[in-house]
Amino acid sequence: MHYPTGVKVKKNNNINYANRGMTLESELNETNHFYLVNNIAVIYKKPTPITIHKVNYKSRNDAVIVDARFKIPSTTDYNGIYKGKYIDFEAKESHSKTSFPLKNIHPHQIEHLKMISKHGGIGFIIFYFSIYNEFYILKLDIILRYWNNQDERKSIPYSVFVNEGYKINEGYLPRLDYLKAIDYLEENN
Amino acid sequence: MHYPTGVKVKKNNNINYANRGMTLESELNETNHFYLVNNIAVIYKKPTPITIHKVNYKSRNDAVIVDARFKIPSTTDYNGIYKGKYIDFEAKESHSKTSFPLKNIHPHQIEHLKMISKHGGIGFIIFYFSIYNEFYILKLDIILRYWNNQDERKSIPYSVFVNEGYKINEGYLPRLDYLKAIDYLEENN
Repeated sequence: MHYPTGVKVKKNNNINYANRGMTLESELNETNHFYLVNNIAVIYKKPTPITIHKVNYKSRNDAVIVDARFKIPSTTDYNGIYKGKYIDFEAKESHSKTSFPLKNIHPHQIEHLKMISKHGGIGFIIFYFSIYNEFYILKLDIILRYWNNQDERKSIPYSVFVNEGYKINEGYLPRLDYLKAIDYLEENN
Repeated sequence: MHYPTGVKVKKNNNINYANRGMTLESELNETNHFYLVNNIAVIYKKPTPITIHKVNYKSRNDAVIVDARFKIPSTTDYNGIYKGKYIDFEAKESHSKTSFPLKNIHPHQIEHLKMISKHGGIGFIIFYFSIYNEFYILKLDIILRYWNNQDERKSIPYSVFVNEGYKINEGYLPRLDYLKAIDYLEENN
C-alpha cells in the first residue's frame, strides 16, 4: 500500500486516539507544552529560519513581511533542558515502509548532533514511520553507522528501528513521551 | 547627549576597533562562531519567530513568503551548550546613559529564564549600553530584584551594572567573550 506524500494514514480503530489528524510537529509541540507546564523539561521548537528581503511598515507596530525565503536550517529543530542536561534533536517523517531514507536528513544536522554529543549534550533524532504510525529514537552512533556508509546504501532499514531503536508509544498526556526514551538510553549507556 | 533610536554611536578613537559599525547581534554571532569552530561551545541565535500567512510556490524549490508577520518571541534569542551545561540568554541594547529600562525585556523572557535556572541551566541577559559602548551581564537574581519591584522604578540604574554586573570587554577574537563571565559567575556562585 502506497500513500502519496503528505497524506496522513487514518486508522479505523479507536485505539489510535492520540494521533488523529495531528502532524509530528504538533504532537511534539503538545508534548513539550506538557513537559513545560508540569515542570519536567523546558524544550521548544526553534522558529523556521527565513531570510527577509522586504518589510512594509504600515505603521510603527504593523510590519508586514512581503518578501522572504526559507533558509536551510543550520541546526536541529528542537532544543532545551531536561534534568540539568542539554537536549537537542530533530524530528523526521517518512512514508516508506521498508526503510528510512537518509536524504531526509541534512549533513549539517548530523554534524551539529555530533558536536552536541562531544560537548556533553544529548543529541538524537525522532523518526516517524507514518505508514505504521510508529515513532522511534535511534542513538547517534547507530545513525552514524548508516550515515557514514552511504556508498553502500542510502537508508536505514526498518528492522534496525525495530531491533535497535527505542519505540515511543503514543499516549494522551503527554502524546509522545520521548523523554522516557532518553531516561532509558542514558541509564543503559 | 541623546541619540535617536537605532543610530549607532561612532567613536573617533582607534581603540574601539572591534565594534565599528557592528550590531550587538552580529558581534554575538561572530563570537558564537568563534566558540563553535574552536570547540569551546555550541551556541546559536534562534531564528526570528514569524507567522506565515501566504507563500507563493513559483516552482518546487522556489517558495516565496509574500505575507508574514513578526511574532513576539516566547523565549530568549540565544541558547546552546557550554562545558556540558545548558546556556540560555537574551541580549538587549539601550541608548540611555543613566539606567536600563525594563520595558526592553518581555515578561515571558523573564519567566523563561526563571524556568531555565530552576531546571539547572545557566540563564542571563547581556546588556549593552550603546552610549558608553559597554557590555554587562547581570545575574538573574539581580535582574529580579528590579523586575519584581517595578511599582517603585521601571529601570535598573547604570551604577548597579558597574558595581554588581560583570563587564564583558570587547576583543578581536572572540569579540565578546561572554563565556568568561559565565566561568566567573559559576565559580563565585
